[in-house]
Amino acid sequence: MEECKPILNTGLRGVVIADTRICEVDGANGRLIYRGYLVQDLAEKATFEEVSFLLLYEKLPNKQELGAFKQQLAAERALPPEVIAAMKTRPKEALPMDVLQAVVPMLANHDPDIRDQSQAAVLRMATRLIAKFGSVIAAWHRIRNDQEPVEPSPDLDHAANFLYMLSGEIPDEEVARYLDKALVLHAEHSFNASTFAAREVASTRAHIYAAIAAAVGSLSGDLHGGANTRVMEMLYKIGSPENVKDYVNQEFDAGRVIFGLGHAVYDTDDPRADIVAEMSKAMENKTGKTRWYETSALLEKTGKAEFKRRKGSDIYVNVDFYSGSLYLSLGIPVDLFTPVFAVARISGWCAHVIEEQFAGAAPKPMLYRPESEYVGDYCGPDVCEFTPMDDR
Amino acid sequence: MEECKPILNTGLRGVVIADTRICEVDGANGRLIYRGYLVQDLAEKATFEEVSFLLLYEKLPNKQELGAFKQQLAAERALPPEVIAAMKTRPKEALPMDVLQAVVPMLANHDPDIRDQSQAAVLRMATRLIAKFGSVIAAWHRIRNDQEPVEPSPDLDHAANFLYMLSGEIPDEEVARYLDKALVLHAEHSFNASTFAAREVASTRAHIYAAIAAAVGSLSGDLHGGANTRVMEMLYKIGSPENVKDYVNQEFDAGRVIFGLGHAVYDTDDPRADIVAEMSKAMENKTGKTRWYETSALLEKTGKAEFKRRKGSDIYVNVDFYSGSLYLSLGIPVDLFTPVFAVARISGWCAHVIEEQFAGAAPKPMLYRPESEYVGDYCGPDVCEFTPMDDR
Repeated sequence: MEECKPILNTGLRGVVIADTRICEVDGANGRLIYRGYLVQDLAEKATFEEVSFLLLYEKLPNKQELGAFKQQLAAERALPPEVIAAMKTRPKEALPMDVLQAVVPMLANHDPDIRDQSQAAVLRMATRLIAKFGSVIAAWHRIRNDQEPVEPSPDLDHAANFLYMLSGEIPDEEVARYLDKALVLHAEHSFNASTFAAREVASTRAHIYAAIAAAVGSLSGDLHGGANTRVMEMLYKIGSPENVKDYVNQEFDAGRVIFGLGHAVYDTDDPRADIVAEMSKAMENKTGKTRWYETSALLEKTGKAEFKRRKGSDIYVNVDFYSGSLYLSLGIPVDLFTPVFAVARISGWCAHVIEEQFAGAAPKPMLYRPESEYVGDYCGPDVCEFTPMDDR
Repeated sequence: MEECKPILNTGLRGVVIADTRICEVDGANGRLIYRGYLVQDLAEKATFEEVSFLLLYEKLPNKQELGAFKQQLAAERALPPEVIAAMKTRPKEALPMDVLQAVVPMLANHDPDIRDQSQAAVLRMATRLIAKFGSVIAAWHRIRNDQEPVEPSPDLDHAANFLYMLSGEIPDEEVARYLDKALVLHAEHSFNASTFAAREVASTRAHIYAAIAAAVGSLSGDLHGGANTRVMEMLYKIGSPENVKDYVNQEFDAGRVIFGLGHAVYDTDDPRADIVAEMSKAMENKTGKTRWYETSALLEKTGKAEFKRRKGSDIYVNVDFYSGSLYLSLGIPVDLFTPVFAVARISGWCAHVIEEQFAGAAPKPMLYRPESEYVGDYCGPDVCEFTPMDDR
């Protein structure tokens, strides 16, 4: 027996609950690996479609496989008109993640494979989900602005099509490439909270849509996918580089954190952060509006130095730190940052649902059903005697 | 350090991950306790409204508190017309649990407290969810049958109102009382898979609707809330008491299980099963259609004896075993059995979301983020070198 870590009320931190062939987060060395490949290599050399194929099918596609997969994705992008009709009933101020969470089980209503529990059927449903996630976000953004949703374009790649459906305009190639890279970087991250939610639901043999809707709910939390939005709100509050020093001192004095500095898993800079920072810098140079990258870069430098001075230890930036300024420069509204995270992570979630339901692991996979320790001492160590209404 | 149980790929069975003041499942002694009270006492002496108050507020309500709570519930039963409109876009063959999972985040769109993270706001949202769950199921059942949804009646108690909204007729008092009792028995069961899903999502500081939608997804799985439906399908297959013996032998010969026999947690008869069985018997005597209770009772007797003969050990009935025949005699269609389970369990889910987000436990609660062991040996112990497209 190995030594037990205490796990009561610690959110299962550090507790190894399953094996997986999908992803390794090597925090000590700052490495993130999808199905054997370093995320840096994938971001530089592969598209989101290739990476989605890799996550689902455990290998990089050859030309023919990629062509077929891209064709499937393009063919599945359009939303059923009944789903668009349902979205039009939603109040304009609805939180976009709530709209996404509602639409996922509605898509299940239109999927011809929904009662089929075979792996082939789940793979088809996964492909539809990956294809449609961007369409849902783009359609909702149009609807809430009193615009008709844009039909998907089969001639555009995944990232470019999303931007096209969002704005109605064919995006600049560089802009589309940067979004594609950001999607690759966010596609997978092992047993994070939203992925764990998807696996938990999938473990009851619920269908993939039910599991993915749970993951969307989990990602919507401020401690998880909401973090990139918090970073941007912080940058707005700071306003410009000259206010950075005061802001850092004020936050550390008050015992608060700088959003995007620090990560639960990495003991180095998040391997994705550098790539996002470079893209943010390049995009702001391209548009000539350099305020947010410059503010972020100074905030990183000042925050790290001040943390070291005060605590004597290092702190590192995570992937959310430069994502805010990047997404903004790509034309994505701040309240769609977390939904765009979902547009990327859907591929990882689907791979995990499939692994949860079909991995040939021994012992046989079973539903997640942890234990709790009852500390409800309402009547001391005994059970309570039922008190009739008149005696309460 | 205590001895470690192996927890890799075992669905966290037997692993104590948190303390709780809500519920104790004492499997060894066949006791189920909600906030200090035995479930038998609550089923016999308290209503679903009282038990929901107990779960949310940690005490049985006095007359005034119960009156106010019942008034709040009655006032919150109606669904926003925009949600009814969205439900009308759904195809009639949609799975009812998928419709429920879609409606929950839509209700969030209409909740004035949705951006308020205080405990008082979450309690108000919980009350609305408890009030509305039955309305969603009833409205969907009407809509799929081309009938207009029935407006809730403020004069009826919770269970009676649900049956009224389902059929459009004021139910018999005894029928309503049996449903009320069944709701009490299903209201809470500690860290079962759906409750754990709700807590997992709530731990990211997502709002209560996001967490409850995840729980609905988890409950929809065949290994969890789908079990009561499987029992009824099994009874239909058996057809009548004279076929029980052959069925039991045939299933055991094939190495299959009898649905509703055996439970992951109890080493005795499930304390709820007897109460459900009594109600099922009474209801069938009342209606004069005794086939399913009689078939179930003989199946329990034969299944237990045959299991003992073959395996030398005892097997016990769980709460699902007699729920099927009871629900059917109460006028609930088979494909709404699992949604009715949700109508009951919503109270427990809400109590757990509140405990997850507001319990003053030390150490401070944090989001669930377990670890996994990477076994993706795609390129041996090393990472894979990226293969250019032409070499794949």
